[in-house]
Amino acid sequence: VKSRETIGWDDTHTCIRYIDQTRLPGHYIVVLCRTVQRLATAIRRLEVRGAPALGVAGAFGVALAAATCKKKDFASFRAEIRKKGDLLTATRPTAINLSWGVNRVLCALERADSIDAAKKIALAEAKKIAREDEACCHAIGEYGAALLPGRCTVLTHCNAGALACTTWGTALGVIRSAIEQGKEVKVLACETRPLLQGARLTAWELSHDGIDVTVITDSMAAHLMRTSTIDAVVVGADRITGDVVFNKIGTYMHAVCARHHAIPFYVAAPLSTFDHERTEKDVVIEERSRDEVARCGTRITVPEGVKVRNPAFDATPMELVTAVITEQGVLHLPLDMKALIRHRTIR
Amino acid sequence: VKSRETIGWDDTHTCIRYIDQTRLPGHYIVVLCRTVQRLATAIRRLEVRGAPALGVAGAFGVALAAATCKKKDFASFRAEIRKKGDLLTATRPTAINLSWGVNRVLCALERADSIDAAKKIALAEAKKIAREDEACCHAIGEYGAALLPGRCTVLTHCNAGALACTTWGTALGVIRSAIEQGKEVKVLACETRPLLQGARLTAWELSHDGIDVTVITDSMAAHLMRTSTIDAVVVGADRITGDVVFNKIGTYMHAVCARHHAIPFYVAAPLSTFDHERTEKDVVIEERSRDEVARCGTRITVPEGVKVRNPAFDATPMELVTAVITEQGVLHLPLDMKALIRHRTIR
Repeated sequence: VKSRETIGWDDTHTCIRYIDQTRLPGHYIVVLCRTVQRLATAIRRLEVRGAPALGVAGAFGVALAAATCKKKDFASFRAEIRKKGDLLTATRPTAINLSWGVNRVLCALERADSIDAAKKIALAEAKKIAREDEACCHAIGEYGAALLPGRCTVLTHCNAGALACTTWGTALGVIRSAIEQGKEVKVLACETRPLLQGARLTAWELSHDGIDVTVITDSMAAHLMRTSTIDAVVVGADRITGDVVFNKIGTYMHAVCARHHAIPFYVAAPLSTFDHERTEKDVVIEERSRDEVARCGTRITVPEGVKVRNPAFDATPMELVTAVITEQGVLHLPLDMKALIRHRTIR
Repeated sequence: VKSRETIGWDDTHTCIRYIDQTRLPGHYIVVLCRTVQRLATAIRRLEVRGAPALGVAGAFGVALAAATCKKKDFASFRAEIRKKGDLLTATRPTAINLSWGVNRVLCALERADSIDAAKKIALAEAKKIAREDEACCHAIGEYGAALLPGRCTVLTHCNAGALACTTWGTALGVIRSAIEQGKEVKVLACETRPLLQGARLTAWELSHDGIDVTVITDSMAAHLMRTSTIDAVVVGADRITGDVVFNKIGTYMHAVCARHHAIPFYVAAPLSTFDHERTEKDVVIEERSRDEVARCGTRITVPEGVKVRNPAFDATPMELVTAVITEQGVLHLPLDMKALIRHRTIR
């Protein structure tokens, strides 16, 4: 089971290096990103996407802001870095990891007493975050793998894989670790409209690793839950509040259908995805452009003038989540809640 | 509320005339179809689609077979017509209306005692089926409209509209009739992957008629059921057996999610869609080509070599269906079944 680095620091060119995910699976292009402005565009365009990868991108973004800052006095330097951090945080409102990564490096900068020290500290902290992300994914993978039967079919949505992190993946990390443990895992990858991260990215990275993967449209999941054997649904998360899991649009539908068929529904995410300060009502779900839904490649599929909705995420109430798999272990719901759910399940 | 004829007979050219639905919404092209072979290709390619329209296509197909048959003796004539009827029936296995339309005209031919009489009878019967389809849709519309509140939002899947019939539509007929009765109806049209009949066809015909329509991806339906007000789901059907409703892939998912949110789930279909002889296990769900899922326009979205599933339909168990709206009235489930469901709903 191989893996590749989605985003990292290029020491030779003193810049960020990432795989442009909008070009996959047709083209594998590694971009050298030299300005925070360019990184912000890359994040908006989803060249870099996936909650944990966005955390790492935010962290390297602040390091890049520091490395490229021309200010000579420390106060102006810090003001500019903060401003660029805010710029990055504003690119995508729903995933918490982005602001988490930005803030962690900004906090580390508080230790610096000079511009030179700040540049070093920022880069060191960002690299540490990237290393931690890799360790997190492997820990999530180990904990999650233990939940899967020795031979199973797992349904996943969007891409919570190596491409959503630095490497290995969260939901797909669980699958990779299970296979590493000798389990036989088949994957059903929902294509994930509108931007097809499941078809383009999950299928690409799993098939590259020789993992058995079949792509289906999002609308086939419930039908296959009913007519074939799906042993678990495993997805990632963009933000976990006390009451809900925010994740790619379509996740909630799978959670409802999994419950209807008494299939375990697991969320795999690092603790950096948890937001202890907010509940569902405090979080904005990003509404993206009409074109993502209204066009397929160059073809216009929705007639001109017809309205389109394009929320990028949905919220799944915690009572539909069997467990959250983190790098610290598997979080089950409070016991009384679990008893309630067991009472309501069908199988 | 206007409408247009999806498929009909062209007396001037003695052939079938239909709107090529693969070209919508970009191009409105009316095809003159002069051979049964061409019609079979059109049905396979979904130039003509939608259960009731396939019934009419099957009927006109037999009329066309009769009109173009060169056989001089009646026995050979009848044998050839039957063969061409079988050819048409075999093009798509799941929708029952196709074989129903073919068989109704073949049965009518039993009355004929000469080739000339047979040609006339076949065409007359096919035209009668087309007229009946229009009357059916208006009756379904009237009965269904009574089920909708005065101001409501209806979610629909695929295209069970004028383009799926000769005119007016089944599910969309319900919406058109409700609006004609002065009700305010907003429509959420699920795009319906992989072939986007909802985005391309439902949005096109409703917006042409000035009906308020918004296109969403199939994966957004459950999210909007949870976070906004959806008053009913209304869909068509390709075959209704005693135990299940076969309809476009994705229908079952909507039924499960509608039940979870205690939203009424209505199936609108003429009685010709009912199959009293079979149950779910006897019906083949058509598996269509990989390319429909693996490509978007000319772009390859699923990496080469990765497996794809593409069942065109799914089966929704009758206990998830609130009522079936037919031209003879609204069929509710048996009362004890209804009580059970009311007991299990959440709202």
